[in-house]
Amino acid sequence: MPIGMFDSFITGHWFSAEAKRLWSDEATLQSWLDVEAALAQAQAAQGLIPAEAAATITGQAQASRFDTRQLAEAIAFAQHPLVPVLHRFEQLCGEPAAGYLHWGATTQNIFDTAAALQMHATHRLLLRELDGAITAIGALATRHRSTPMAGRTHGQHALPMSFGYKLAGWIDELDRDRQRLQQRLAAAFPASMGGAIGTFAAMGPRGPAVEAGVAELLGLQPAGLPLRGSYDRACDYVQALGLLAGTAQKIAQDLVFLQRSEIGEVSEAFHHGKVGSSTMAQKRNPSSAQLLASLARLLRLRVPGALEAMVRSDEGDAAATNVTDVLLPEIALLGASLAGCLCRLARGLQVDAAAMARNLALGGGLINTEALMMRLTPRMGRHRAHRLLYEVAQQAQSARLPFRQALLRHPAFAEPGLVEELLQALEPAAYLGESVTLTDATVARVPGARPAPPPA
Amino acid sequence: MPIGMFDSFITGHWFSAEAKRLWSDEATLQSWLDVEAALAQAQAAQGLIPAEAAATITGQAQASRFDTRQLAEAIAFAQHPLVPVLHRFEQLCGEPAAGYLHWGATTQNIFDTAAALQMHATHRLLLRELDGAITAIGALATRHRSTPMAGRTHGQHALPMSFGYKLAGWIDELDRDRQRLQQRLAAAFPASMGGAIGTFAAMGPRGPAVEAGVAELLGLQPAGLPLRGSYDRACDYVQALGLLAGTAQKIAQDLVFLQRSEIGEVSEAFHHGKVGSSTMAQKRNPSSAQLLASLARLLRLRVPGALEAMVRSDEGDAAATNVTDVLLPEIALLGASLAGCLCRLARGLQVDAAAMARNLALGGGLINTEALMMRLTPRMGRHRAHRLLYEVAQQAQSARLPFRQALLRHPAFAEPGLVEELLQALEPAAYLGESVTLTDATVARVPGARPAPPPA
Amino acid sequence: MPIGMFDSFITGHWFSAEAKRLWSDEATLQSWLDVEAALAQAQAAQGLIPAEAAATITGQAQASRFDTRQLAEAIAFAQHPLVPVLHRFEQLCGEPAAGYLHWGATTQNIFDTAAALQMHATHRLLLRELDGAITAIGALATRHRSTPMAGRTHGQHALPMSFGYKLAGWIDELDRDRQRLQQRLAAAFPASMGGAIGTFAAMGPRGPAVEAGVAELLGLQPAGLPLRGSYDRACDYVQALGLLAGTAQKIAQDLVFLQRSEIGEVSEAFHHGKVGSSTMAQKRNPSSAQLLASLARLLRLRVPGALEAMVRSDEGDAAATNVTDVLLPEIALLGASLAGCLCRLARGLQVDAAAMARNLALGGGLINTEALMMRLTPRMGRHRAHRLLYEVAQQAQSARLPFRQALLRHPAFAEPGLVEELLQALEPAAYLGESVTLTDATVARVPGARPAPPPA
Amino acid sequence: MPIGMFDSFITGHWFSAEAKRLWSDEATLQSWLDVEAALAQAQAAQGLIPAEAAATITGQAQASRFDTRQLAEAIAFAQHPLVPVLHRFEQLCGEPAAGYLHWGATTQNIFDTAAALQMHATHRLLLRELDGAITAIGALATRHRSTPMAGRTHGQHALPMSFGYKLAGWIDELDRDRQRLQQRLAAAFPASMGGAIGTFAAMGPRGPAVEAGVAELLGLQPAGLPLRGSYDRACDYVQALGLLAGTAQKIAQDLVFLQRSEIGEVSEAFHHGKVGSSTMAQKRNPSSAQLLASLARLLRLRVPGALEAMVRSDEGDAAATNVTDVLLPEIALLGASLAGCLCRLARGLQVDAAAMARNLALGGGLINTEALMMRLTPRMGRHRAHRLLYEVAQQAQSARLPFRQALLRHPAFAEPGLVEELLQALEPAAYLGESVTLTDATVARVPGARPAPPPA
Repeated sequence: MPIGMFDSFITGHWFSAEAKRLWSDEATLQSWLDVEAALAQAQAAQGLIPAEAAATITGQAQASRFDTRQLAEAIAFAQHPLVPVLHRFEQLCGEPAAGYLHWGATTQNIFDTAAALQMHATHRLLLRELDGAITAIGALATRHRSTPMAGRTHGQHALPMSFGYKLAGWIDELDRDRQRLQQRLAAAFPASMGGAIGTFAAMGPRGPAVEAGVAELLGLQPAGLPLRGSYDRACDYVQALGLLAGTAQKIAQDLVFLQRSEIGEVSEAFHHGKVGSSTMAQKRNPSSAQLLASLARLLRLRVPGALEAMVRSDEGDAAATNVTDVLLPEIALLGASLAGCLCRLARGLQVDAAAMARNLALGGGLINTEALMMRLTPRMGRHRAHRLLYEVAQQAQSARLPFRQALLRHPAFAEPGLVEELLQALEPAAYLGESVTLTDATVARVPGARPAPPPA
Repeated sequence: MPIGMFDSFITGHWFSAEAKRLWSDEATLQSWLDVEAALAQAQAAQGLIPAEAAATITGQAQASRFDTRQLAEAIAFAQHPLVPVLHRFEQLCGEPAAGYLHWGATTQNIFDTAAALQMHATHRLLLRELDGAITAIGALATRHRSTPMAGRTHGQHALPMSFGYKLAGWIDELDRDRQRLQQRLAAAFPASMGGAIGTFAAMGPRGPAVEAGVAELLGLQPAGLPLRGSYDRACDYVQALGLLAGTAQKIAQDLVFLQRSEIGEVSEAFHHGKVGSSTMAQKRNPSSAQLLASLARLLRLRVPGALEAMVRSDEGDAAATNVTDVLLPEIALLGASLAGCLCRLARGLQVDAAAMARNLALGGGLINTEALMMRLTPRMGRHRAHRLLYEVAQQAQSARLPFRQALLRHPAFAEPGLVEELLQALEPAAYLGESVTLTDATVARVPGARPAPPPA
Repeated sequence: MPIGMFDSFITGHWFSAEAKRLWSDEATLQSWLDVEAALAQAQAAQGLIPAEAAATITGQAQASRFDTRQLAEAIAFAQHPLVPVLHRFEQLCGEPAAGYLHWGATTQNIFDTAAALQMHATHRLLLRELDGAITAIGALATRHRSTPMAGRTHGQHALPMSFGYKLAGWIDELDRDRQRLQQRLAAAFPASMGGAIGTFAAMGPRGPAVEAGVAELLGLQPAGLPLRGSYDRACDYVQALGLLAGTAQKIAQDLVFLQRSEIGEVSEAFHHGKVGSSTMAQKRNPSSAQLLASLARLLRLRVPGALEAMVRSDEGDAAATNVTDVLLPEIALLGASLAGCLCRLARGLQVDAAAMARNLALGGGLINTEALMMRLTPRMGRHRAHRLLYEVAQQAQSARLPFRQALLRHPAFAEPGLVEELLQALEPAAYLGESVTLTDATVARVPGARPAPPPA
Repeated sequence: MPIGMFDSFITGHWFSAEAKRLWSDEATLQSWLDVEAALAQAQAAQGLIPAEAAATITGQAQASRFDTRQLAEAIAFAQHPLVPVLHRFEQLCGEPAAGYLHWGATTQNIFDTAAALQMHATHRLLLRELDGAITAIGALATRHRSTPMAGRTHGQHALPMSFGYKLAGWIDELDRDRQRLQQRLAAAFPASMGGAIGTFAAMGPRGPAVEAGVAELLGLQPAGLPLRGSYDRACDYVQALGLLAGTAQKIAQDLVFLQRSEIGEVSEAFHHGKVGSSTMAQKRNPSSAQLLASLARLLRLRVPGALEAMVRSDEGDAAATNVTDVLLPEIALLGASLAGCLCRLARGLQVDAAAMARNLALGGGLINTEALMMRLTPRMGRHRAHRLLYEVAQQAQSARLPFRQALLRHPAFAEPGLVEELLQALEPAAYLGESVTLTDATVARVPGARPAPPPA
């Protein structure tokens, strides 16, 4: 009887199957056991517990030997999430190894370090998908480096640009998203083994060395000052995921618009059997872009919860850690799934350059008004040119007069040759600015954005 | 040296001048003084303090007699926001009246009750603007009750409908917003006079009668159980404003889209001198709709702050009340300004029925696929009709073939007369459903939406 | 392989088992089928489809006949959440009934109406738990109507009060939470059968009657204006749940404080086997109060997501409805679980009146300073009394002098008999104000708060 | 008539006066003018405009020559925030310089670059305050490196620790907050001169060099790809401020608790004349800590607004930029004021080591149960020791028996010498773990945390 969006038959396909494996109950339990085993090994290396005990503990650290149904009941009774697991683990280890299990550690050490392992694995997955998205968008940007389309601000035609330039903006931002995640991962999710309040009280002076040993065994950094009350670094990573969600939702929003019935400049991958509506058979919805936006919102809305949960009382505060214990997996799953969705969406995008050209031409040249202004500037200064063109362009729009015609009629342009020069400047493709250069530079700069050269 | 969006020369015009007067420092101070005066009068009526003292206090309760600069310094020194005001007030009253001032009250009683007065006044203003918006949209809905336009879902043409029907949806929701605010106001912003922790300890058994007296004098409800730790009712009103912001942002988003260069179905009021861009002279931005969306966001983002500040420790908690003391005025100002912006926007809207018709026709009848399906249903059942039309419509789209042509070609419609019947069903205006009826019913139901009859 | 907090062996026990049954995949699917069946019946009653078809559809509307694994795959392929379910349903119905299934409806109609059914059931469950909490707190309030404790503001002793008075404040707020939910339920979660864009286009003029029929069959209200773009009413209910979460978190925060090692005024139910820590055997954590706070936060953080998703484009927008489709079940589960947690917590609360008295006495009478001020008021006015006592009390605190001693020493109290009178006023229990009266009145007013009389 | 929290006579003192000067209307206008001047100079250097024009423009770029009241009216009329300023600027420049003003730029370029200047200045101010706080807390940490106090988790005594250790945790986190802000500043707030949609269309190939020139003149980085639609970097800085707010609120929450009437372990600076309540003369509120928490909340609640505003349509979207144009100054003011508040609070903190010792002793040794467990571990293994001590400690608490007595009575400790050894282990000061070492290491590592050595 699955409950919740990740597992449901309705929405399960929204989410990365690989990420779901990383955060299943079994994987979480295994992650706890791996941390307990690493702890025992590190303590044996420091001479705190016998090497045989560590070997036994490590040997028994297999989730398949635990019955999660029984554990669920015992946890509900004990109102403690780990102690019943330890009891079963002790049984499996037998004496005397059982007496060296979870030695000097506290529950939150195990939970935080185990979650760190899962976050590292999720991060790798997420980055693979993000790299895939960047590569797909990069290829599109190169192909459309000079494909003209309308640049729009406030929903209105602004200036012409190339489609590649728009994509370059996405690549640039996605690359920063990737760097932020990469830079923050290790510090955000370290091995933390300071015991009840982080003072290494039970392990004593060798505590920091044990923590360092656990970290090394698990491929993590040691926490150093292993305070349970300090969540800023994890939260910083979560916020970087929030930024990725922001980028993704922006891209999604543009892609929904560009696919609108009236616009049609791009379209998502379609296959026979993809259905848009149970009642409107013609529908081809931008469902991937909308899913991307939805995942982004579901992720974004969780960020303030993580930030609020930074505010924790004293040396430990379950009113906050309960929240992040369940929020972090949700955020991780959403992050990886969002990156996967973006990658698939990017790979399937179809571009309709003719539709771009058609839309660009709709305003009859109005979109090139700035180009005209710059042409007039040597004659009358930028300021007077702006005022003059304001008059002409607004009048044309109020009177629903084609812009070219309004120009021809206006006395200010009576000077011989001037109108001709201006009409020439109305060619959208001639006013792409540095669209192409900036596109090329971005594609060249961002790792993975430039298509790989064919093998020699 | 103004600081902050309300006062700034740049953004001051975004905000209702009337609301700003209600929340100026002077108005707030006057509101405090009015509450102190009402308290004294209510206590005199209960025989707790001499009537002369109440008269003196009431006579001196004039903000103009206070120097807010001096008060600001004294407040910073005392680190208390009211005591310096009381000291000045005591000076003004002289003996013995000074000894009866603020009798049995605590600071938060004065602040909350004064803010209640300001909220009631802001509410009236907001409702006036909201009524104006509903009336303007109602008139448009009546005028365009049967003007056909494309109904869109997921950014794609879905079914035809009338523009009036869209507007009816807005009216319906705005009417509920209005009702929610109206229903919650009195309980949300009562007179609260329970003293330090709400137990009426200083006033004793006559305390509740004093509170009731203050409430009556000020046109408010008594709080009853005057707990400083209970913020649910005020928060409920704030959340109703959040819903209004949600409605407004939805309307704004639709209006930005409908004004897009490629769509052009509506336009905002324009006057010569309204500028869209410092560099693109042609620009006519949907600036009012974007401002409406911006105000809605600025309001919406404050709602969780109010909700979080419901969580207050013990019998009083400045870590929460400080927040709501400054947040509530911001929310009130945003609410009233948003309603004003919506009203102006609605009054200036221009509708382009021809553009609506043009866009509706773009898909060559695809938007009527459901109509075809319902025609085919008696012949083959809804399910087979859906599958058949899915095939035809998707193929047409993949092949960029006009839908009519794809229908004509398809063997399933070879039956004599069938294609003719179907082609007839492709007329958008014939498939408005209950658009008109629902529009009329909504306009009739919602107070203020139906245009007033001309005077006899 | 369960994923997510509701199902997990670690946190599954946080959540109401009953609520989980209501929102399981099976229950959701059954709810969809129930709505399709009601639709068919209502349409048959209106003569739109044959009665036999409706009977067949109703007979086959059993979730157990569907394989959710197969559906999951088909949904992932179709990228549509309902069409594969309809296909299987059509198979089950056979001809000709299959052709009358989902007649004139759109997917979101089914989803919204089905979710409405689930919300109504969850609401009933939630209210039962909330009633239980109110009754338990009411009984405590009656028992402790006059048990003295320190009233605290800003973390400092303020005035004495009774514990019952604190509880009365909780009851009062919970009662309002209950009323808000009750009042909003029906409008928030109606039957909505307007088809693709709410215009009843496929059903025509009989559409509204069909919707009314569906509503009656399912025990819901008809939506009336069945717009998919209007989410304010559901959001209003969600916000009322947000307020309940605010109340709950406030209660939880107070209960965590009152259980602190240094305070010890209340304690949660304890049973042998309840474990506080894997390393600190002495720990008795306020785990239920912290869980309550955690559930409240997990709920509260979702509220802005619902509010943001009110902002939906055009006549339907999956970028928003995807979000609420998965958010609403989460919110419902959290709401019911939170109410259950509150109820259990309230039932198990132990009160330590002696600890309350001990803490109340800690300041040596400082907590009664207002009482002294009111005694001095007839002699010197409230204002001078405040200033005099400020001097004495602050000096005493700076010098760490017992307050009584500081009073005795101060020349202002040299007047015969005055100090005696003041010392008398230092008795906390004598300055409870209207604590008891307000407690009694609240318990009497709030349904369910007054303990049921013993059976005759 | 000031409106809004920054200016108000009531709350104005909450905010940094220096930060307010940086964000006053005059300062903002001057910042715009400085950017226009730098643009002209950079363009002159590139030969795009005459050097004389640049000199004239630079000479007239003085805010005092503009009348903000007149501008406010003109802006309201034009519904454009910059064009009226440009008109006045053109007047001041006269011909021909006026014709070279704002050459090739768009409004948002000026606004973003000007805000960048103001953010850099605010950042410097904020860091100065943050450094001050770190130094003050560092000095306290050194002084109290080994002052014993109760470590608390879930509101319950957990293990002993030193007060210095708690402070080390704060320093560590504040240092990271500082580093994050420092690392992100330059990229977050660059000079952006790409024109209408960032393509440098009006300036052409020399555009990037102009942008670089402007950046150099203003001490900023060039934006590079000057997209108006990309807000991730600014948002990243805002989120780093959110983390600082999280840290600050955590510190504030602990400080409110540690000052509670029953705890009294620390106290804020007090001066005669600081008032806690208008009715309770004895009150000494933790008003600075509560203000710190309030500022933190006011900042935190704005972070999702910035994140949401990352989602902007197309190449420019006032529905988002309007929001960040007013939100960023609020966030900047809150950030600097919060840092200032933290610094003042830290400098004034008084520590009561005796109260810490008193509270530590309250549980009669229960807080050292882990120490006992570790002593017993060699005899019976950690697991059995935990179970045994669970039994003893829980029984003692249920029976309200002193822990020492319960130990003495328990048969498990009958072994000669064992109880003595255990009782010895109950000394809290002997179980501080690595508190002192970790404190010293943190103070040594964090720049500014170690007190400066006295001058030789």
